[in-house]
Amino acid sequence: MRIVVLAGGIGGARFLRGLKAAAPDADITVIGNTGDDIHLFGLKVCPDLDTVMYTLGGGINEEQGWGRADETFRVKEELAAYGVGPEWFGLGDRDFATHIVRTQMLSAGYPLSAVTEALCDRWQPGVRLLPMSDDRIETHVAVTLPDSGSATGSGERKAIHFQEYWVRLRASVPAHAVVPVGADQAKPAPGVLEAIAEADVVLFPPSNPVVSVGTILAVPGIREAIAAAGAPVIGLSPIVGDAPVRGMADKVLAAVGVESTAAAVARHYGAARPLSGQEGQERGEGGAGLLHGWLVDSVDAGAVDEVAAAGIRCRAVPLMMTDLDATAAMAREALALAEEVRAS
Amino acid sequence: MRIVVLAGGIGGARFLRGLKAAAPDADITVIGNTGDDIHLFGLKVCPDLDTVMYTLGGGINEEQGWGRADETFRVKEELAAYGVGPEWFGLGDRDFATHIVRTQMLSAGYPLSAVTEALCDRWQPGVRLLPMSDDRIETHVAVTLPDSGSATGSGERKAIHFQEYWVRLRASVPAHAVVPVGADQAKPAPGVLEAIAEADVVLFPPSNPVVSVGTILAVPGIREAIAAAGAPVIGLSPIVGDAPVRGMADKVLAAVGVESTAAAVARHYGAARPLSGQEGQERGEGGAGLLHGWLVDSVDAGAVDEVAAAGIRCRAVPLMMTDLDATAAMAREALALAEEVRAS
Repeated sequence: MRIVVLAGGIGGARFLRGLKAAAPDADITVIGNTGDDIHLFGLKVCPDLDTVMYTLGGGINEEQGWGRADETFRVKEELAAYGVGPEWFGLGDRDFATHIVRTQMLSAGYPLSAVTEALCDRWQPGVRLLPMSDDRIETHVAVTLPDSGSATGSGERKAIHFQEYWVRLRASVPAHAVVPVGADQAKPAPGVLEAIAEADVVLFPPSNPVVSVGTILAVPGIREAIAAAGAPVIGLSPIVGDAPVRGMADKVLAAVGVESTAAAVARHYGAARPLSGQEGQERGEGGAGLLHGWLVDSVDAGAVDEVAAAGIRCRAVPLMMTDLDATAAMAREALALAEEVRAS
Repeated sequence: MRIVVLAGGIGGARFLRGLKAAAPDADITVIGNTGDDIHLFGLKVCPDLDTVMYTLGGGINEEQGWGRADETFRVKEELAAYGVGPEWFGLGDRDFATHIVRTQMLSAGYPLSAVTEALCDRWQPGVRLLPMSDDRIETHVAVTLPDSGSATGSGERKAIHFQEYWVRLRASVPAHAVVPVGADQAKPAPGVLEAIAEADVVLFPPSNPVVSVGTILAVPGIREAIAAAGAPVIGLSPIVGDAPVRGMADKVLAAVGVESTAAAVARHYGAARPLSGQEGQERGEGGAGLLHGWLVDSVDAGAVDEVAAAGIRCRAVPLMMTDLDATAAMAREALALAEEVRAS
């Protein structure tokens, strides 16, 4: 079975660990978000790719969900002693090595996809990890910064890097728009469209629908390839009980005018046309969206009918990734829903 | 008093510490060797500049003479885990930060001299540290590598980076030539020629006469500026009792056809013309060399007459930098010899 997963950082990485347990023989291709990539200290940092790589490769800091286990911060302390920041982004010494290798290879002319493959030679994540694009894409967030005492009394509107919004400001200022700068000119990385075309199932893990999965879908060609793949597309809600399971997805959902509910996120992705050869296909049912199936958490069972009414097959199951078993069970539910879509 | 010092790494840095103690009110400009600079992991590493900066700024590893005190090697271990070397060059975590800052500034377009000044803002070395040039110069060594079992039975001749010869091979293979690649096209860094022109005394510390002081003198204009400065030029022998005090200077001296003796190194630098207005100047005495005075170690007292016969004022004094007091005493002897030259 060939599975394609569109993954952001922590949520995507943890789900993938469950998916590998649930489908140990599957051929899994992960299309990783690079919209939160950032240049720090002259080095190219790819937080989401690294979180997937470290998590599946056994190097992750389990407690915080990102960064390396057994980490120290000598380099960062020394950079601060030189007055060189930012200090709000936590790069550890072990982590620095990854960015040094990546930057050296990029400077030598290798595309990010080749660099990612080389890094994975060490980590052996057990999946094929592809960046969504080799082109530079940076998610920026239009915010209103707190009033700094200007004559007008109104806060300053400004576009800032996603990491500054997310990590430095902890999404604490109003966000008006989320823009994956560069995405419109970007091409999918080699292998991305091919993997989607050959997929037996496409999964959207409980990653951020705006700044993770949404950014991947903003690369021209990826959304179209998924819609055309003829494979069931199944998503898992990152919103449980009207709040994000982790992170601050509600803040960026608000910026794109989507409610923080499991049903609203499903409608945001939209209903896919039925798979070709199926009944609805002939009747022209379904829409221009992507989802054939959607899993909501048991506490959101009340949303199942609403999602189904939108043309998306929906089930309520436990969606808290409390441990590997619970996460593997979620992955099994997603694969079962895909089979149900295919068989319908 | 304005003092200009041409410095390599450990020997130069330790001498400078003594000089600062001996002449606390002097205005000291250090012209640092950059011929042993190397690009490692995509980062610009300047070992000699850093050794001077760390030594005078209180951050040096005192035992080994280079690198940072209280150092760890997480980044290097991780790079090795990625299969990225070289492993033979000991970059510690704290040290990495210096190279990251330097590389980031160079990439932003700042010349090495401005970068060095910025790094020294933190370290406050108490001297003005100038790289000999903002242009890239890399000392290469022509060597015969050990016979690798070729049909001819002879070893391979090859030019390798100075650090590979010095650090990886520990100067254990025959060296035929030492070439500061790029020096012939390089210009002295801003401030270098001005500092020399305004100097009251120029000192050659007990640094390597070939790959440290010799490389600095290979930058077009520096040798000429020293010869024209009208200031006493005093050197301290790095050879004591026919062997280098530290390092492997004998190996590179052999490559340029100079015996490893205190007198031979003095003749290698050569006798300067007497200072303008002095007797010898009118008589056309002295040569096209650089030295007015030369200090040899007490154990080499027998060399004093030979050096003097070459037209260089010479004294035998203790030249072992065993501690700060001993080093300060050496610096005082050098300054006293400069006064003697001026007064003669």
